[in-house]
Amino acid sequence: MDSVSINAVLRDTVEQLPLIDHHVHGALRDTPSHEEWANSFIEADTQPFPPQLDPLDSQLGFAVRAWCAPVLELPRHVDPQTYWQRRTTLGEQEVNRRFLAAAGVQRWVVDTGFATDTILSPEQMHEASGQPADEIVRLEVLAEELHAAGTLPADYPDAFRNLLSARTRDAVGTKTILAYRCGFDVDLSRPSDAAVSSAYRQWQQGDSRLTDPFLIAFGMHEATRTGLPLQIHVGFGDRDLDLRAADPLLLTDFLRDPQVQQASVLLLHCYPYERAAGYLAQAFSNVYLDVGLAVNYLGARSAAVIARSLELAPFSKILYSSDAYGPSELHYLGARLWRSGLTKALSQFVASDEWSVDDAVRIAHLIGSGNARRAYPALSLKEQSV
Amino acid sequence: MDSVSINAVLRDTVEQLPLIDHHVHGALRDTPSHEEWANSFIEADTQPFPPQLDPLDSQLGFAVRAWCAPVLELPRHVDPQTYWQRRTTLGEQEVNRRFLAAAGVQRWVVDTGFATDTILSPEQMHEASGQPADEIVRLEVLAEELHAAGTLPADYPDAFRNLLSARTRDAVGTKTILAYRCGFDVDLSRPSDAAVSSAYRQWQQGDSRLTDPFLIAFGMHEATRTGLPLQIHVGFGDRDLDLRAADPLLLTDFLRDPQVQQASVLLLHCYPYERAAGYLAQAFSNVYLDVGLAVNYLGARSAAVIARSLELAPFSKILYSSDAYGPSELHYLGARLWRSGLTKALSQFVASDEWSVDDAVRIAHLIGSGNARRAYPALSLKEQSV
Amino acid sequence: MDSVSINAVLRDTVEQLPLIDHHVHGALRDTPSHEEWANSFIEADTQPFPPQLDPLDSQLGFAVRAWCAPVLELPRHVDPQTYWQRRTTLGEQEVNRRFLAAAGVQRWVVDTGFATDTILSPEQMHEASGQPADEIVRLEVLAEELHAAGTLPADYPDAFRNLLSARTRDAVGTKTILAYRCGFDVDLSRPSDAAVSSAYRQWQQGDSRLTDPFLIAFGMHEATRTGLPLQIHVGFGDRDLDLRAADPLLLTDFLRDPQVQQASVLLLHCYPYERAAGYLAQAFSNVYLDVGLAVNYLGARSAAVIARSLELAPFSKILYSSDAYGPSELHYLGARLWRSGLTKALSQFVASDEWSVDDAVRIAHLIGSGNARRAYPALSLKEQSV
Repeated sequence: MDSVSINAVLRDTVEQLPLIDHHVHGALRDTPSHEEWANSFIEADTQPFPPQLDPLDSQLGFAVRAWCAPVLELPRHVDPQTYWQRRTTLGEQEVNRRFLAAAGVQRWVVDTGFATDTILSPEQMHEASGQPADEIVRLEVLAEELHAAGTLPADYPDAFRNLLSARTRDAVGTKTILAYRCGFDVDLSRPSDAAVSSAYRQWQQGDSRLTDPFLIAFGMHEATRTGLPLQIHVGFGDRDLDLRAADPLLLTDFLRDPQVQQASVLLLHCYPYERAAGYLAQAFSNVYLDVGLAVNYLGARSAAVIARSLELAPFSKILYSSDAYGPSELHYLGARLWRSGLTKALSQFVASDEWSVDDAVRIAHLIGSGNARRAYPALSLKEQSV
Repeated sequence: MDSVSINAVLRDTVEQLPLIDHHVHGALRDTPSHEEWANSFIEADTQPFPPQLDPLDSQLGFAVRAWCAPVLELPRHVDPQTYWQRRTTLGEQEVNRRFLAAAGVQRWVVDTGFATDTILSPEQMHEASGQPADEIVRLEVLAEELHAAGTLPADYPDAFRNLLSARTRDAVGTKTILAYRCGFDVDLSRPSDAAVSSAYRQWQQGDSRLTDPFLIAFGMHEATRTGLPLQIHVGFGDRDLDLRAADPLLLTDFLRDPQVQQASVLLLHCYPYERAAGYLAQAFSNVYLDVGLAVNYLGARSAAVIARSLELAPFSKILYSSDAYGPSELHYLGARLWRSGLTKALSQFVASDEWSVDDAVRIAHLIGSGNARRAYPALSLKEQSV
Repeated sequence: MDSVSINAVLRDTVEQLPLIDHHVHGALRDTPSHEEWANSFIEADTQPFPPQLDPLDSQLGFAVRAWCAPVLELPRHVDPQTYWQRRTTLGEQEVNRRFLAAAGVQRWVVDTGFATDTILSPEQMHEASGQPADEIVRLEVLAEELHAAGTLPADYPDAFRNLLSARTRDAVGTKTILAYRCGFDVDLSRPSDAAVSSAYRQWQQGDSRLTDPFLIAFGMHEATRTGLPLQIHVGFGDRDLDLRAADPLLLTDFLRDPQVQQASVLLLHCYPYERAAGYLAQAFSNVYLDVGLAVNYLGARSAAVIARSLELAPFSKILYSSDAYGPSELHYLGARLWRSGLTKALSQFVASDEWSVDDAVRIAHLIGSGNARRAYPALSLKEQSV
């Protein structure tokens, strides 16, 4: 095959890959205000954008204008005002319908633990996209429910286990946002029930937000003991987070725990620690990684982070996700940028004859969906039961 | 437009951009010795270079030979000895005249706080280049002046505020070299005047060099309370510095201080932490970054760091600087390499149709000078008052 | 010269460079089992690879299939099973003969400190390759020998010095695996003999593996006092290692010791800290770096790490190594990938006219062997004595 044909094969393959988006949130239910919409593209800031500046003057904003505009039948790079008017005219239902379909995702694995009143539930994601949607249970939410219900300290360990068991009955995995609550630079060894009760008693005297590392670690260990996959937010996010304490290497001791090694552990996002995450994915046979979220935020620079994710990690340990939340531009863009970036990386590997075309096609399928099926056994079972 | 025309438009735009060099030092007053000159290209070492090696065998040295030689009417890649003879023959005044003009800088923002006896003052930079030069006041210098003058501990807090106020009357910003003095891994919360007096009393028993984190933090907080922009040296520099303690993420708590958020904070250089700096520039609406110094030292590899600076940071938060100090080759080279690197990055974004040409041109102007005008309000006022 | 000719000159130069592999281990003595062989390509895991996955589904595995297969007269990208059968049929002696020759290495500098019963000694490497092989003495092995021999605490400091002196009589350097034993985030200042005796007494009550930072630091200081080069494992390796504690910046204080500065210090591997290592190589005139091991593991992505090693470090401070251990595919692949990656980097520097062809050729020779000769004075003497 000549290089033009090779690139065509790779491009076609990756463009048509049915994806499993293994970490995503719901799309918006209703048309947002302009400010809500624009601020959705600035992950890290809670303040309104300075009025003299365009919030879309970022790699993400430019990517929305380049890639999302055509899905709304607008020219690429359309001005933000025209874009905004068009999406408002279409209405959120039509916007969602278009972007969710354009993503080419065959299965959504939805984190239902954050600000769910304005976004679609897994069932609604299913309706809006025509594709099945599974649930990921956020561990800190369970703890906070028990706290709100006035669970007694002595009862807390069993109550948590029971609630986890009940809530994950139909879920395919769990998630922790340790990074947002206390960072990774804490003792993550498995605490005793007595110690957990005592920490919980202390929490009862504080506010409703769980930040105690002990109690979060308890949740993580209990989650891995169910055998369900555990997703861990790693690397960049909004500014509540101390990015230095979201370095996945700080999880090394946790990952060395033999019980933890019985479950899949999925390192989410990882930027700018994707090389360290790749090291962990090689070092621990149960550890996986993705570069979701970062891909959207890096826009025209996202091909580089995708290429970096293809370094130390065995190819069986890399997954696709968008980490989209809210505007369904993000659900589409995650897939759109990932397809472009992966095609670019694979084309370079094949062009220098370091990979064969067949291997490149095979690995694209693994990353696009095959690895998620192995990492999440429940996902595979659900697919088979259809 | 075809791709050849696009590249021509982008190249012409960036080549002709009038720059604001928002962090720079004076050029040499007099012709240096060969050793002084050669050692200017090894930021991190105080020892003479081993005699059997050429100090120009580095990316910076090769960049001097490639880009600076033609400005002295020598062929690209000329041998170091011929280059040295030529610059000596021309004399420092002529060398400065050529390189400062070739930089295409319309305004120099000069840090006057380091070893100023051998380099040009802002006024002299103005004379040598024909372009206005503004002043950045280094905070540690003010503290050391008060220390040298025998200021009493009880008087120190007010004396510092008064001196800061007096010295910044005509300045456009302030700068801290916290990174060189104690690193960022210290408590940077705002100290009380009583605590400052006490720390100052201790310093009076030590040597004249300020390294006390308490007193440096005091200066930083006072500086932001003036409303003037605060420059912070981040990342690599000479070997006095512990590079690990120059990670900008260690500034996160300082940046969370609501008072600090009232002033622009400019993260300088940042290598190899430019991705972390970009995260902070997105997370905090008053935080800006540049990759000056690194651009010069990376030479033929500098396009990559410029591209990395275009990741998370909103495009309104990225600035140009050279951080040149001494030989005016560095004042020119900063601009020369930055223009090449930015053109390369923009061309790639446009070639893949992820950015429009118009956006690329607009963002180039923002980074070249527009963002500096917004970050430094005094600069804008001075321009208008001309 | 036109660009085609330039690339041809650079390619030919780098392809034919005789290399000094300044950090390598012996090749396999005997044909391994399939499991041993396959697990040799997963640095970081001690577990067998999950049966449903191919252990060669990694950048390293694909590089073996792409580059090593032709040396065994198989087509590029041959399937793993055919490859395995072919190398088994040929036998280890023939496999070694082919790969060691194909590496184009003119001198092996062999670390003899790890699991030497299954791999070739320096003498056997000489026989198998026809090229001279020198020895690097691993410091922790010496300490453990004295421990096993029941050396008395009071005698330990002198006994270590005597053993070091005896064992390095014909060696060209020393090596520490501090990274594997306690990490770099420890006090590495020179301990007194009394303190060493006391730490040794404590060790006598533990197991035979040396992990005491005090005793390891003692070895490192004694090694530099001999004037011999000291190799330090930096960055990624197997999962015994805490990658965060293998950051070379944690060595900064050790490198500031004036006595340490009398010997060459060689930072090995360095991934993903190669930029930090480059900073140290610029900051300290006795510090060198390589990106061995990483080059093999990154396969089709290795050109990027080679390019990153050409940033801050002066060109006189960068060395070649493979860090191959075991299957001689790794001895060959290190050189094969390095030649491709270096050619790519140099071609880009020359294509943009930032480097001259002559400089690129000169620097290729420095990195391929010249810098090793200067870093290891004993190596140079041995070459001259032939």
